[in-house]
Amino acid sequence: MSESAVVNRRILLARRPDGPPVPEDFKTVKEPPPAPRAGQALLRTLYLSLDPYMRGRMSEAASYVEPLALGDTMCGQTVSRVVQSNDARFKAGDLVLANSGWQDYAVESASTLTKLDAAMPRPSYALGLLGMPGLTAYVGLLDIGQPKSGETVVVTAATGAVGSVVGQIAKLKGCRTVGIAGGAEKCAFAVRTLGYDACIDHHAPDFPQLLARACPKGIDVYFESVGGSVMEAAWPLLNVHARVPLCGLVAYYSLKSLPAGPDHVPVLLRQLLVKRMKVQGFIIFEHLDRQADFLRDMSGWVRDGKVKYREEVLEGLERAPAGLIGMLRGDNFGKLVVKVADG
Amino acid sequence: MSESAVVNRRILLARRPDGPPVPEDFKTVKEPPPAPRAGQALLRTLYLSLDPYMRGRMSEAASYVEPLALGDTMCGQTVSRVVQSNDARFKAGDLVLANSGWQDYAVESASTLTKLDAAMPRPSYALGLLGMPGLTAYVGLLDIGQPKSGETVVVTAATGAVGSVVGQIAKLKGCRTVGIAGGAEKCAFAVRTLGYDACIDHHAPDFPQLLARACPKGIDVYFESVGGSVMEAAWPLLNVHARVPLCGLVAYYSLKSLPAGPDHVPVLLRQLLVKRMKVQGFIIFEHLDRQADFLRDMSGWVRDGKVKYREEVLEGLERAPAGLIGMLRGDNFGKLVVKVADG
Repeated sequence: MSESAVVNRRILLARRPDGPPVPEDFKTVKEPPPAPRAGQALLRTLYLSLDPYMRGRMSEAASYVEPLALGDTMCGQTVSRVVQSNDARFKAGDLVLANSGWQDYAVESASTLTKLDAAMPRPSYALGLLGMPGLTAYVGLLDIGQPKSGETVVVTAATGAVGSVVGQIAKLKGCRTVGIAGGAEKCAFAVRTLGYDACIDHHAPDFPQLLARACPKGIDVYFESVGGSVMEAAWPLLNVHARVPLCGLVAYYSLKSLPAGPDHVPVLLRQLLVKRMKVQGFIIFEHLDRQADFLRDMSGWVRDGKVKYREEVLEGLERAPAGLIGMLRGDNFGKLVVKVADG
Repeated sequence: MSESAVVNRRILLARRPDGPPVPEDFKTVKEPPPAPRAGQALLRTLYLSLDPYMRGRMSEAASYVEPLALGDTMCGQTVSRVVQSNDARFKAGDLVLANSGWQDYAVESASTLTKLDAAMPRPSYALGLLGMPGLTAYVGLLDIGQPKSGETVVVTAATGAVGSVVGQIAKLKGCRTVGIAGGAEKCAFAVRTLGYDACIDHHAPDFPQLLARACPKGIDVYFESVGGSVMEAAWPLLNVHARVPLCGLVAYYSLKSLPAGPDHVPVLLRQLLVKRMKVQGFIIFEHLDRQADFLRDMSGWVRDGKVKYREEVLEGLERAPAGLIGMLRGDNFGKLVVKVADG
């Protein structure tokens, strides 16, 4: 590789979206890659993860973390190859998990990198099934949802990076699993491949009735990542002692103000009280103590063929903006990653 | 006691309240006491507990349990003296905890009775500090609220049967405790006698500002039994990882329909998500496994003078309706009991 010929494409936040993001909210700049200093490594991005939380980082409103500044590189977890290392823990050629964002190359402090297990089925799995989305499913379902055999677990975004794993773990735990997804193709995949007992298309005009029919014994665990009309159909079905792990509210991410739902807070609280329910929000970065248990269990399930996984791979960094825009509309089918370079 | 002279006054639900209960919703009938059969005991009511949940039982709407039927004796826990026992486990003169409701005498199956510890400071404590309200405080605060030393715990109905115990346990656990109560007298009692660090009068026109000032580090545990404008002032102050044990919503008990609060459900859920909060409803009858731990701890705290307790005792069964009506308005000051007969 001739250093002088190398160009780093970097996709940055050009302006804050006014509603759903559009291509003009992003800008691509081309620069020489930065040079690593002591304790740092130069990385080549191989795969970039696209996730709904990125929409929140584009807004000015504070959320979990500081929003991106205008001009910042769009954030994101990556699977990267070490090109050059100035730290003894890594050497050129190592495959690592990094947070390098939307760019071809990045310089990262070695302390922020995790060496990837060469035994992983595919390196990109570290961004999904065996990464943060998988851990989100594992912790949210098992630790917060605490499903018991025979209970009904309803999963929003049932074929997505998190939901597809939630549904399969719930099935392994002996639950009746009912997915909610957008469109007949996803619903068929959910039942045939992911093993859901039923999957309901939330675009169906009689969606609330179909969901109720699929849950004849009500809902014991409602894994919530969406909100909106999906939530409105699910809540009335929640049973006494229902648990609601809450890891996202994608339906609201691009709204300028939150909608006036059909119910007011007192209605929700009364339901919570009368049914002795639990609703708990969580983000996965606060549950990394479960990483070892998760990797042990999930690696076993994958090895034994008990968990299936679908990736949608976009070829080329330049497709990342359209990929995120589409994901927020529900266009993706499975875990969405961008392949930035060959391994 | 001449059997022929004995009259049992029984206060029954005469009609369902239309809003806050009024005296005409109750009716007193006078009958001879029933006679116990095998396995039963005839009880003389000494103390009757009055509690907010009774309002719910007067309505037709299903809640935790079946509503009372029209003509049913008003429900309630009692401390009673065994007059006659047809069961080997009890003998005349025993002091028992029963669910005999609003009447002078009752016949109960022996299996529903609990013999009371003669070492209890006062028998009526079995209806409050050492009974269900105390256990509600203990389980709700410690198991659901999980307060850590140095955290801020805010307690609604801070001088009531449950709240007064919550505040004192939280203080024993090293928390900053902020009460919310109605009126200057209750607030002064909360600080001087119950040891709250601060207590805010929710009637104050600048109540939300006063509450915010009393919680300079925000709220970590919000013990909710009220709802309404108290809740609206507290929620914006909740910290990341806040816990909300929810054991009642007294503000709504007499409303015909739940109010349109200032916030919609999506707003609440977004706060739950972004702040990784937990809201959990509970009723104490599902946590009786904690009874032994509770009695051990609470008896010790009472013996060591670490927990204070205030009772408001109404003299005479005939005062029960007015007592409940006033309690639902917040008139009572401390745990409300009716003294029905001398021990």
